[in-house]
Amino acid sequence: MPKLRVHNFSISLDGYGAGPDQSLEHPLGVGGRRLHEWAFRTRLGRQMIGGKGGEEGIDNDFWSRGDEGIGATVMGRNMFGPIRGSWGDSDWKGWWGDNPVYHHPVFVLTHHPHEPITMEGGTTFHFVTDGIESALEQAFAAAGGQDVRLGGGASTVQQYLRAGLIDELHVVITPTLLGSGERLFDNLDGGPDGYERVELVSSPSVAHAVISRTK
Amino acid sequence: MPKLRVHNFSISLDGYGAGPDQSLEHPLGVGGRRLHEWAFRTRLGRQMIGGKGGEEGIDNDFWSRGDEGIGATVMGRNMFGPIRGSWGDSDWKGWWGDNPVYHHPVFVLTHHPHEPITMEGGTTFHFVTDGIESALEQAFAAAGGQDVRLGGGASTVQQYLRAGLIDELHVVITPTLLGSGERLFDNLDGGPDGYERVELVSSPSVAHAVISRTK
Repeated sequence: MPKLRVHNFSISLDGYGAGPDQSLEHPLGVGGRRLHEWAFRTRLGRQMIGGKGGEEGIDNDFWSRGDEGIGATVMGRNMFGPIRGSWGDSDWKGWWGDNPVYHHPVFVLTHHPHEPITMEGGTTFHFVTDGIESALEQAFAAAGGQDVRLGGGASTVQQYLRAGLIDELHVVITPTLLGSGERLFDNLDGGPDGYERVELVSSPSVAHAVISRTK
Repeated sequence: MPKLRVHNFSISLDGYGAGPDQSLEHPLGVGGRRLHEWAFRTRLGRQMIGGKGGEEGIDNDFWSRGDEGIGATVMGRNMFGPIRGSWGDSDWKGWWGDNPVYHHPVFVLTHHPHEPITMEGGTTFHFVTDGIESALEQAFAAAGGQDVRLGGGASTVQQYLRAGLIDELHVVITPTLLGSGERLFDNLDGGPDGYERVELVSSPSVAHAVISRTK
C-alpha cells in the first residue's frame, strides 16, 4: 500500500516548526531559518538552491530519503505562498522559481479555488478546496502507485495526524530555542496514538527521529 | 564560578516533561514513566533503584554526569512529593526511601513552611518559602564551592530559565509522543535567549542535547 510520509520536518528544541510572525520576508517566521541551516549544509540541500559542495553523511542521507519513492506532494497553502484569504489577481507561483524542486503533481490545500499552475520540470500545482481526505485521494491517484509526501506547515501536519492518515513522520530536532512560533505537536487532542519509534540517530548538527504508525 | 545545572531532564518528542494527571500513583503523570525508561536501562540508573546489570555507554555516561561536581540540589515541591497545599500532619519524606539518592543538602521550593528533614546518607531536605533566588543562594552556600543541580519539575525549571539563572541544561529527547501533559519549554515569555548548543549526541534510545548560557 502506498504511504503518506512526512520528511525533514525541522523543529526547535522547544518544539516549534516555524518562528513567530510569518510573512513574505520571513516565510519560516522570525528566526525560523535557523531550523533549516542543517539542510543547507548538506550536499543535496545546497544543490537544491543551485549551490555546490556541502556535506555527505547522515543529514544528507535523510534529506535524500524525502524524495525517494515519492510520486506526489500535499501541502498547506501557507507553504505554497504568503498570500492569505482570496487569491485576487495574484500571479504567485510558489517559493521555488520556474522549475520547482518537486517534479511531480503538488496538491495545495486551500479554501479558495485556483486554476492549476503548470511549471517547468514536471511540477503542477493543483488547488484542492474540498478537504484533506480529497487532497490525499487525488495525490495517491496522481502518484501512480508511489508514496505521497506531506509537506508543511505544522497545522497541515496536525490535521493529517488528527485524522490518523500519516504513515511515517521524520522529525529533525535542531538544538536551538525559538521561544515562540508554531509548534508541530500541538492541537492534537491528546494524540496522536499508535505511533512507535523506528529510528533515532544524530549527526553533530541535529537529531533525526522517525516514527511510524503501528496500526 | 559554581554553576546551576539541569541534567537528564527527559522530554517526549512532543515536548512534555511529564504526562497529564500527576498523582501519588502517577508521580510523572499518566504515561510519564515512558520518559525515563532509558535511564533505568543504564547501569547507574538500575543501581539507583537497587538493581544490577544495565547498559554502559552514552546514556549511562550522561546519567553519571548529573552527579559530578554537584554539592546541593534545588527542586520544586511536586518533585519532592504528591502533597499539595498545606503540609498538615504529613510525615512524607520524599519519593526516595530512607537513604535518598542525593547525599547532599536539597532545597525544596514551597509556599508552606516545613522543618528540615534529615535522612540517612547525607541528604537533608530544607524547605524554602522565600523564592527561587533565596533557594539558589542557600544551595550555593551549602554546596561548598561545587555546582548546584536543579531538579524538576518543568515549572521549576521554567522559573529559573525566566530568571536567567540556569548555566547548563541537559535535555533528553525520548522518541515517544505523550499527547498532553506539562511541557518543559513553556511559559517562557518568548525566551530563553542567550543559550547555545554545546553537545548533541544520540544513543539508540534517546537523543541528548546540552545547551549552555552564552552570557
